[in-house]
Amino acid sequence: MEGRTTKELGRPSLGLTVLLYNSPVSGNCYKVRLLLAHLGIPYERRELDVVDRSNRREVLGDLNPALRVPTLVLDDGRPLGESGAILWYLGEGTRFVPEDPYERAQVLQWMFFEQYDHEPAIAVARFWLAYSGRADEFADRLPERTAAGHRALAAMERHLDGRQFLVGDDLTLADIALYAYTHVAPEGGFELERYPAVRSWLDRVASEPGHVTIDAP
Amino acid sequence: MEGRTTKELGRPSLGLTVLLYNSPVSGNCYKVRLLLAHLGIPYERRELDVVDRSNRREVLGDLNPALRVPTLVLDDGRPLGESGAILWYLGEGTRFVPEDPYERAQVLQWMFFEQYDHEPAIAVARFWLAYSGRADEFADRLPERTAAGHRALAAMERHLDGRQFLVGDDLTLADIALYAYTHVAPEGGFELERYPAVRSWLDRVASEPGHVTIDAP
Repeated sequence: MEGRTTKELGRPSLGLTVLLYNSPVSGNCYKVRLLLAHLGIPYERRELDVVDRSNRREVLGDLNPALRVPTLVLDDGRPLGESGAILWYLGEGTRFVPEDPYERAQVLQWMFFEQYDHEPAIAVARFWLAYSGRADEFADRLPERTAAGHRALAAMERHLDGRQFLVGDDLTLADIALYAYTHVAPEGGFELERYPAVRSWLDRVASEPGHVTIDAP
Repeated sequence: MEGRTTKELGRPSLGLTVLLYNSPVSGNCYKVRLLLAHLGIPYERRELDVVDRSNRREVLGDLNPALRVPTLVLDDGRPLGESGAILWYLGEGTRFVPEDPYERAQVLQWMFFEQYDHEPAIAVARFWLAYSGRADEFADRLPERTAAGHRALAAMERHLDGRQFLVGDDLTLADIALYAYTHVAPEGGFELERYPAVRSWLDRVASEPGHVTIDAP
């Protein structure tokens, strides 16, 4: 196991593992699974449907004010929502969060950029086109998301040109957060040919020891 | 001065102050101004227009990949974007970020909730109705944002019922982040009568020593 163990997270372990309310196709959930794999933290998955959300309040009502996956339940029962907050909880104190205050803030800058600019464009276009089962209904709203997604990818391309990773010289939570939906952006109609620095960075992230794919069991 | 000084932020001070690229009406910028006021950190404002964004690449191109305000430039010239990342940079190590790892993650949970669920609904509706100068153009898209905004306010109401603040027993970055657009939600057409716990919490945040209003010079 790399990084800190569940015991080092400051809770009695009692042989329990964390529980992840998960969707197999959600990039937001994949971020959490990818970090859990890098850290070697055992966890249990509970799968929720991302298309039929009718049971969300029943299942997540007491766990996550936003009623979304991922939601993590710690082994003492305390819940945590928002992929970025879950990543920070698991990652702080490991090699995936720098010690330097400015670099820590840069990691969060890219994580907030991902949730505000990148995900609402790229993940939503991908969901509409590849997973909703009713792409036609969203056709008139797609061009706006496509344009916004290309602005986000262009911002990444400018930053990654000449850099190995988004912050500093090593993989951080910023890379894990942005890898998730960038590497499946073609499912949302985003061809990555025009973004060579992004493509090289995707290869670099995927070749890190401990990496798992989005469809890893 | 309360909290850590600019010197304690780990940089030589040289008598310089931080520079905030700002918009007077942006709640995202107000969050930063409110925390800077609580911390007693001196700063210089540079105002950008939130309606005419034509000069954004020229002004912010080298400072913030998202080309948005707020953008903070530290007194050694290093830039930082995203209100949430700026709040964390300034707030870590002060009373506005708890020491407990789970509470820290809860603060971030609410900050990510604000940027993903709350701001895109409430801030956007407010901008369209009160500041864009062309509310009619957005009329057909307003109902979706209105519904999303009420979902976000209802989530806050459920959580704040019986609580003093969003996380723990004291004001944190989570309260500062969510106060910004919640207290001006009526400008976006959101009446707060049905959210008594939210209204009490707004009063509580505004009565904290060190509080400044959104229009404070």
